[in-house]
Amino acid sequence: MKIAVDAMGGDYAPEQIVFGSVRAAKEYGCEIVLVGDEGKIMQVLSKVRDWQRLGISVLHASQVIEMGEHPVVSVRKKKDSSVVVATRLVKEGTCDAVLSAGSTGAAVAAAQFILGRIPGADRPTIATPMPTPRGVTLLLDSGANVDSKPKHLVQGAIMGALYAEHVFGIKNPRVGLLNIGEEETKGNEQAQATYPLLKAMKMLNFCGNAEGRDIPKGNFDVVVCDGFVGNVVLKFAEGLAKTLVRLAKEAVKNGGILAKIGAFLLLPALRKLGRTIDVSEYGGAPLLGVRGCCFIAHGSSNAKSIASAIRIAKDYVDSDVLGHIKENLAREEALGAAGELSETEETASEAARA
Amino acid sequence: MKIAVDAMGGDYAPEQIVFGSVRAAKEYGCEIVLVGDEGKIMQVLSKVRDWQRLGISVLHASQVIEMGEHPVVSVRKKKDSSVVVATRLVKEGTCDAVLSAGSTGAAVAAAQFILGRIPGADRPTIATPMPTPRGVTLLLDSGANVDSKPKHLVQGAIMGALYAEHVFGIKNPRVGLLNIGEEETKGNEQAQATYPLLKAMKMLNFCGNAEGRDIPKGNFDVVVCDGFVGNVVLKFAEGLAKTLVRLAKEAVKNGGILAKIGAFLLLPALRKLGRTIDVSEYGGAPLLGVRGCCFIAHGSSNAKSIASAIRIAKDYVDSDVLGHIKENLAREEALGAAGELSETEETASEAARA
Repeated sequence: MKIAVDAMGGDYAPEQIVFGSVRAAKEYGCEIVLVGDEGKIMQVLSKVRDWQRLGISVLHASQVIEMGEHPVVSVRKKKDSSVVVATRLVKEGTCDAVLSAGSTGAAVAAAQFILGRIPGADRPTIATPMPTPRGVTLLLDSGANVDSKPKHLVQGAIMGALYAEHVFGIKNPRVGLLNIGEEETKGNEQAQATYPLLKAMKMLNFCGNAEGRDIPKGNFDVVVCDGFVGNVVLKFAEGLAKTLVRLAKEAVKNGGILAKIGAFLLLPALRKLGRTIDVSEYGGAPLLGVRGCCFIAHGSSNAKSIASAIRIAKDYVDSDVLGHIKENLAREEALGAAGELSETEETASEAARA
Repeated sequence: MKIAVDAMGGDYAPEQIVFGSVRAAKEYGCEIVLVGDEGKIMQVLSKVRDWQRLGISVLHASQVIEMGEHPVVSVRKKKDSSVVVATRLVKEGTCDAVLSAGSTGAAVAAAQFILGRIPGADRPTIATPMPTPRGVTLLLDSGANVDSKPKHLVQGAIMGALYAEHVFGIKNPRVGLLNIGEEETKGNEQAQATYPLLKAMKMLNFCGNAEGRDIPKGNFDVVVCDGFVGNVVLKFAEGLAKTLVRLAKEAVKNGGILAKIGAFLLLPALRKLGRTIDVSEYGGAPLLGVRGCCFIAHGSSNAKSIASAIRIAKDYVDSDVLGHIKENLAREEALGAAGELSETEETASEAARA
C-alpha cells in the first residue's frame, strides 16, 4: 500500500502533513510518497528519527496551487504542482491513493482530469463523514458539484452506500434524501424528481427524506444532496462547533474561580465526549466516482487528521470500494439501458398499432 | 395594539400558548385575542387570576389544522380553523398581527390567501433570527418558498434588511448571499445570477457571499438564500444543538461524582452562556412580504417563546416595518420599470442604427 500525499496543501503544511504521514507510516504500515518542495519537506523530516526506515520517500514538485486560485485553470497550468504530481502517481499506478488538504477544487479538478470518471458516475461527489452519537453519517455531495440532476444524486447515493458498507462496515446502510419535510411530495424540483428514482432503486435501502435535524442525530447512514446544500451544511456545522467551544471557554474564563474548578473537574468527561464527536477521527473525505482513490482532508488538518485520513484511504483501497462502485454502476447502467430499450420497443409497437 | 394568537397551534397548545399570551399581556401591555376551542382555552385561562383585566379575549374557532395536513388544501377547506380565523382578524383590521406556532405551511398559506402579497414581493419569505455571539443574524428565506428566482432573493434581502433595521435596531445591516465560497463567481446558477443583482442594489449594504460558517459566527446581519437551503440549515442547527446538549448531559451523568460537582459549579456560567444563544428570546419569525403582520413561532414553543414572539410582533407593528417594506419595494419596482424602459429605448435606438 503506497499513498501519495500532497505535502504542500493545508493551513499547516508542510509540517503537520509530514508529521501526520510519519504517524500513519508507523501506525498503519503504509508507504508514503511526500510530494512537494523537497527542501521544505526535508526540513520537517529531519526532525523525525529514522524516518528513512518508515517507507517514506520524497518527490519534488516545484509548484503549489494556492487556495484562491481557480481550480480548473490552475490544475491545467501548474503541471508541476504538488497536487497534480501526487494525483499523477495514482494514474501511473505508482501509488494506490492520493491525499490532499489543499484547495478542494484543485484536488477535485486534478482527479477528474488525470484519473477520469468511472462509467456511470457523471458527477464525482465528496462524501464527508459527520460524527454523530450513533457513529457516522456520510453527507454527500458536500461540495464537488452544484446544480446536480436527479440522476447524479442517485449515482451519489449508490456510491455513498457502497462506501459506508465497505469502509465503515455499515450493513445495508440507511440512505436518506436531504429535504425540507418527510413527505414524498415535499421539497424543491430536484428533490421531488429524485425521490421516486431513489425509491425505485432496489440495491439501496432508501429510507425516505432526511431533514436537517436528522444529520446530527444520526438517523441515516448516508444523506444525499446537491453539493451546494451539502457544502453550506458542512461549513455551518464547522462554524457552529467552533463558536460554541469559544463561547464555553469564555464562559469559564469570565465565570470566576468556581467555574474554573468546575471546568477542571468536568474535563475528563468532556474529553470523552469530544472523542465521540471528533471530526479528526475521520480526517478525510473520498471523492467518489473517479477512477482511483482520491481523498480530501480539511484545510485545517493537523497531524492526527492526516494520519486518520491515510488510515481511511488504506481501508478504501483494501476493501476495493472502487471495484464495487464500478461493478454496481455498470449494472445500473445496463439496467437503465434495458429500461430505455424496452421503452423504445413500446414506442415502436405503439407506432405499429397506430 | 391587539394581537390574534392561534391558541391551538404548537406541540404544547393550548396551555403554553395561553400562558405565553398572558405573560405578554402583563409585560408588554398588548391586547390579545386567543383563537381556538373556547372550552379548552377557558380551561387554561381559568388557572390565571384576574385574566379578564389583562385585555385578553377568546374567539371560538371550531377547527384545527394538524401538522400533517396539506397546507393549501386545509386552509381552503377549514374556514373555521384557528389559524384561518386568527389571520382573518388582521385582514378585517380587528387585530394588528397574527401569531401561530402550528403548521408553518398553513400559517403561510393563510397569510398569502387572506392578507395577500405586497406589490413587489412576489414570494413572501420567513426571516428567522439565529442567535450569534454578536447578536442575531436573520436567515431568510428559511422555508416559505423553494426554487426561488434571483429577483425573489433580492426582494427578500430588501425586506430582511428593513426588518433588521427597524425591529433589531441594526443600522445599515450587513447583507450576505449564502454561497459556497467568497468569490463572486462561486456557487450554483441561482447564486451566480443573484450576486450582481444584490451588488447593484444601492439601498442595500451588500457585503458579498456568506459561507455556512459565517452564520453562527455572526459575520452578517442578514443572510439571504433559497427556502430549501435555509430550512435545511435551520433544522440542522436545531438538531445539532439538541444533540450536543444531550451528549453533554450524558457525559456528566456517566462522569462520576467529580463531573457532577464540576457541572454544578459551572452551572451559573453555562446559564449565562445559554441566555446569549437562547432561541426562545426571539420566539418568532415574521413572514415578510404579506400585507399584514404574520408571525410564525416554533412548534415546540413554550410560554416564554410565545411571549417573546408577541413582543417582537409588537415591535414590528410599532416601527411600521410593513410601511417601510411597501415604500421601498414600490420604489424598487419603479426603478426596475424605469430600467426596463431605458433598455427598451436602447434596443429601439440600436434597431434604428441598424
